[in-house]
Amino acid sequence: MQSRDILQFARATFDRQSFSQLIGAELKDLSDMRAVVEVVLRSELRQQHGYAHGGVLSYLADNAITFAGGVALSGDALTAEFKINYVTPASGPLLRAIAEPVSVSGRQAVCQCRIISLADDEETLVALAQGTVARLPSNHQRTMRASDQGDLTGATPPD
Amino acid sequence: MQSRDILQFARATFDRQSFSQLIGAELKDLSDMRAVVEVVLRSELRQQHGYAHGGVLSYLADNAITFAGGVALSGDALTAEFKINYVTPASGPLLRAIAEPVSVSGRQAVCQCRIISLADDEETLVALAQGTVARLPSNHQRTMRASDQGDLTGATPPD
Amino acid sequence: MQSRDILQFARATFDRQSFSQLIGAELKDLSDMRAVVEVVLRSELRQQHGYAHGGVLSYLADNAITFAGGVALSGDALTAEFKINYVTPASGPLLRAIAEPVSVSGRQAVCQCRIISLADDEETLVALAQGTVARLPSNHQRTMRASDQGDLTGATPPD
Amino acid sequence: MQSRDILQFARATFDRQSFSQLIGAELKDLSDMRAVVEVVLRSELRQQHGYAHGGVLSYLADNAITFAGGVALSGDALTAEFKINYVTPASGPLLRAIAEPVSVSGRQAVCQCRIISLADDEETLVALAQGTVARLPSNHQRTMRASDQGDLTGATPPD
Repeated sequence: MQSRDILQFARATFDRQSFSQLIGAELKDLSDMRAVVEVVLRSELRQQHGYAHGGVLSYLADNAITFAGGVALSGDALTAEFKINYVTPASGPLLRAIAEPVSVSGRQAVCQCRIISLADDEETLVALAQGTVARLPSNHQRTMRASDQGDLTGATPPD
Repeated sequence: MQSRDILQFARATFDRQSFSQLIGAELKDLSDMRAVVEVVLRSELRQQHGYAHGGVLSYLADNAITFAGGVALSGDALTAEFKINYVTPASGPLLRAIAEPVSVSGRQAVCQCRIISLADDEETLVALAQGTVARLPSNHQRTMRASDQGDLTGATPPD
Repeated sequence: MQSRDILQFARATFDRQSFSQLIGAELKDLSDMRAVVEVVLRSELRQQHGYAHGGVLSYLADNAITFAGGVALSGDALTAEFKINYVTPASGPLLRAIAEPVSVSGRQAVCQCRIISLADDEETLVALAQGTVARLPSNHQRTMRASDQGDLTGATPPD
Repeated sequence: MQSRDILQFARATFDRQSFSQLIGAELKDLSDMRAVVEVVLRSELRQQHGYAHGGVLSYLADNAITFAGGVALSGDALTAEFKINYVTPASGPLLRAIAEPVSVSGRQAVCQCRIISLADDEETLVALAQGTVARLPSNHQRTMRASDQGDLTGATPPD
């Protein structure tokens, strides 16, 4: 695919993720340099003390890493693993995850991600993540292409 | 707190997590040996290929680890970090995360977690996680106790 | 390769690792169920307080995971990533890492590892690790086989 | 301690690490912005294919993170956990780990680290790491100070 096609395809993929819709997340920026995913921290996304639930932050890291790595690998990819460090409670009202492919090879893209909480005039770093997006094996790629589904999954390897 | 009080407190805490309600997760079992969190994989929790979104699995790992570690540390605790490996696509219809505190010290509980996907007569391992639940510093504990809020947060350190 | 050949090959590989010899580590047990690597905690392996240096523990985790995953994947594999939690200072005099392939697929083996410190009549858990051993892509496998070098590397992908 | 004292103390600590001497590593730069650890990739540090052993890279990540976080936390600290992604085989002849404290709070410093392999006119990124350096609890700090040992350990919590 051409670069522009990949981006269009990735955006369409994001919008087909039911869970991203449930969360209310948006893919705000996407290039071969980075993916930016944002969500407004409405009350349904909080834990019992009013901060963003850790699971919301881990979703943001997972998905931003998936799309950053997926574009770097031209689309036939999946997130294999990641780790996240929570560093400050996130009170929003806006959360932004920025993931960058730091190392891209024939078989994987290793991405780093930072999540910030944005208020009127303040940005707070709330989490740091690092993970691997793996290129799908070539026979799987053929299946994907045949079925015209592609793969930027935010998910897991169909072995 | 007594052991029984901790468990009651933990269950009440889980039910106060708006995000756990949005996901539809339930705390099915909790002791000083393990925490079990389950969710039915309804369509809103899926990605574009119909499998569980990675963010649902990372939520399950985060929250099961938080509660397993929180009980092991008697309640005044938070999840500081975790890592997750996705190993098989999760098709449900039931997802279960089982977290166990493998090492508990004065300052932290390191927990391991496995997530399985359950169909009629089949269990599939879909993810493995490992993370740290940190005891809150004592001045913070006092605040927590004074305000009767406790802390099993699924969240992040209020430094 | 037959199972027995893999084990022989793996042991020979371990003994060709200069760094394992510098550390003084031994591959004590190896099967498709687990790899056990041991080292006597002599003074050169300690940090300034007399405990095992974190780098010794991370070496043990890295190498035990590599061999456990390498056997599970029949030899053409490399360690792609791992994480380690240090839980107790290790005073030895014997350190033992036990790694098990918990999930094995066509493309990777995800392994868990625990490291214990052994004294006369006491075992202490000192670290927990989890990591990914990746199967080498098939063209790379051919190169490896042609050159009769195999690959259980404790190392990194020659992309 | 004053900033200059911390740096002197940290360098003295590094030189008291027997394992760092066995490896042959040097602390080349240290400030509250970063720690740089280097090692010449002599034959004893290699695996069976001639690349740096994964355990050498994990030692570099562990120790660079420890010192970067230790200075950020003013010295009474230990590395609690880290994760490392190997991205390219490291052939040297010089390896350099650069760790930076990205988030520093009252209780921990979360650091990111990159390891590069340097040849005559080429730099290659060979690994990426992320980890937590934890401040020691205050009673432990007092013990440390009383015994004039300090703590930049590359090691693990004496709970």
